[in-house]
Amino acid sequence: MNHKPLIFITNDDGVRAKGLQKLIETVRPLGRIVAVAPEEGQSGMSHAITMTRPLYLKKVTEQEGLTIYGCNGTPVDCVKIAFDYLLQNGETPDLVLSGINHGANSAVNVLYSGTMGAAIEGSFYNIPSIGFSLLDHDEDADFGTVQQYILPIVRKAMTENLGRPLCLNVNVPNLPAEQIRGIMPCRQNRGYWREVFERRQDPRGHDYYWLCGYFENTEPEATDTDEWALKNGYVSVVPIQVDLTNYEQLGQLKELKFE
Amino acid sequence: MNHKPLIFITNDDGVRAKGLQKLIETVRPLGRIVAVAPEEGQSGMSHAITMTRPLYLKKVTEQEGLTIYGCNGTPVDCVKIAFDYLLQNGETPDLVLSGINHGANSAVNVLYSGTMGAAIEGSFYNIPSIGFSLLDHDEDADFGTVQQYILPIVRKAMTENLGRPLCLNVNVPNLPAEQIRGIMPCRQNRGYWREVFERRQDPRGHDYYWLCGYFENTEPEATDTDEWALKNGYVSVVPIQVDLTNYEQLGQLKELKFE
Repeated sequence: MNHKPLIFITNDDGVRAKGLQKLIETVRPLGRIVAVAPEEGQSGMSHAITMTRPLYLKKVTEQEGLTIYGCNGTPVDCVKIAFDYLLQNGETPDLVLSGINHGANSAVNVLYSGTMGAAIEGSFYNIPSIGFSLLDHDEDADFGTVQQYILPIVRKAMTENLGRPLCLNVNVPNLPAEQIRGIMPCRQNRGYWREVFERRQDPRGHDYYWLCGYFENTEPEATDTDEWALKNGYVSVVPIQVDLTNYEQLGQLKELKFE
Repeated sequence: MNHKPLIFITNDDGVRAKGLQKLIETVRPLGRIVAVAPEEGQSGMSHAITMTRPLYLKKVTEQEGLTIYGCNGTPVDCVKIAFDYLLQNGETPDLVLSGINHGANSAVNVLYSGTMGAAIEGSFYNIPSIGFSLLDHDEDADFGTVQQYILPIVRKAMTENLGRPLCLNVNVPNLPAEQIRGIMPCRQNRGYWREVFERRQDPRGHDYYWLCGYFENTEPEATDTDEWALKNGYVSVVPIQVDLTNYEQLGQLKELKFE
């Protein structure tokens, strides 16, 4: 019997990403680690699951207390396949971590993010689940600052009675550690991406389009949002739920007579 | 100048799916239609966007008041590329419809669903957006019953002052029309999918896994949810929002001292 906590880790930048390595390195002293991460980058894959082809698992690392697999699926697939396997063997992870993402997952990005898709999926098992993201897309980004905030947040998620499901969306500004002003629990900023596709022609004369765009913050003055926190040097922590019901509109709909 | 409403339509079962054709057929009398739908089935693609390859558009139908394109992206990509194109030409759709999906999108499935991913994306433009799903996976399903409910719901969404963004998740039981008891506005049922992967061996001796599973309804007695509505012969209508903040947990987090 092994009573060290079992920590499940995944990401959306792929099994070889530096952010994944740094996350594993940071929490390794806390327990045994099983990681299943996509073989290829899966940014923007949201909560997608793979239904039309089968999944393969490939063990890429096996050390004392650390096993890492690559999987040809999405981040959510990685969570599902790992949990199916672990639970069949009578093991339930004590913690689910996703990241460290290379790039922000604040505001409505929580919806597009593969990192957060995986963290949300983990929370469906009533296990504390946390997605970590650094506001730096660089493949070789410096994760030193994020690493300092991982353990304090993980410990709170595991020890405080915050109810279940529990899923935290943590974003860290791309700043030297000494310029970070602290951890700020906050709400998801409102606002949306507006598209600007870039049109090009392929060598055979067909138009093709690259998805680009910009984020339109529809409440730039609000000071209790993740966008504000990050712009002002705080680590943002947004607790995430998945009841998408708009209760105000539900009340209005109940008053309507549908002919 | 053409003052007929502009209706944008997409789906996740692909541009050739019967459900898409039936949706177009039903709302065609209401206005001009532009449809952009995935070339291939995109079930389970959630809110995924395509970031690592460019998108192509292929016109598949052009008739008076109806243009249909196939796109090699996800349902959300289809919304984004259509809006970019339409808005550049000074056109804003008056309505966004997604479906009719072959299969249910009730409860937490709203999160995995490509149909609902597209409808949610449409609502980001403050345009009434509705996803329609029929509880029948059959490729040749009978959409006659759904079709009777589309126009009453569309009219309410377009004429009532329900606020913006407005996104409705509509599911229709697989029943003859005379057995449907009416339209029921309701909330998203709680509960989650539990995985049961099916393991097989490929001809080269490698294990592979098919994603299967079952839905665990964690509140089977609740009578105000979409699951209950559908089991009891109602058309379920859940208004959808995308603020994923769990405000109760946010309050608790604010009380914590992160060391």
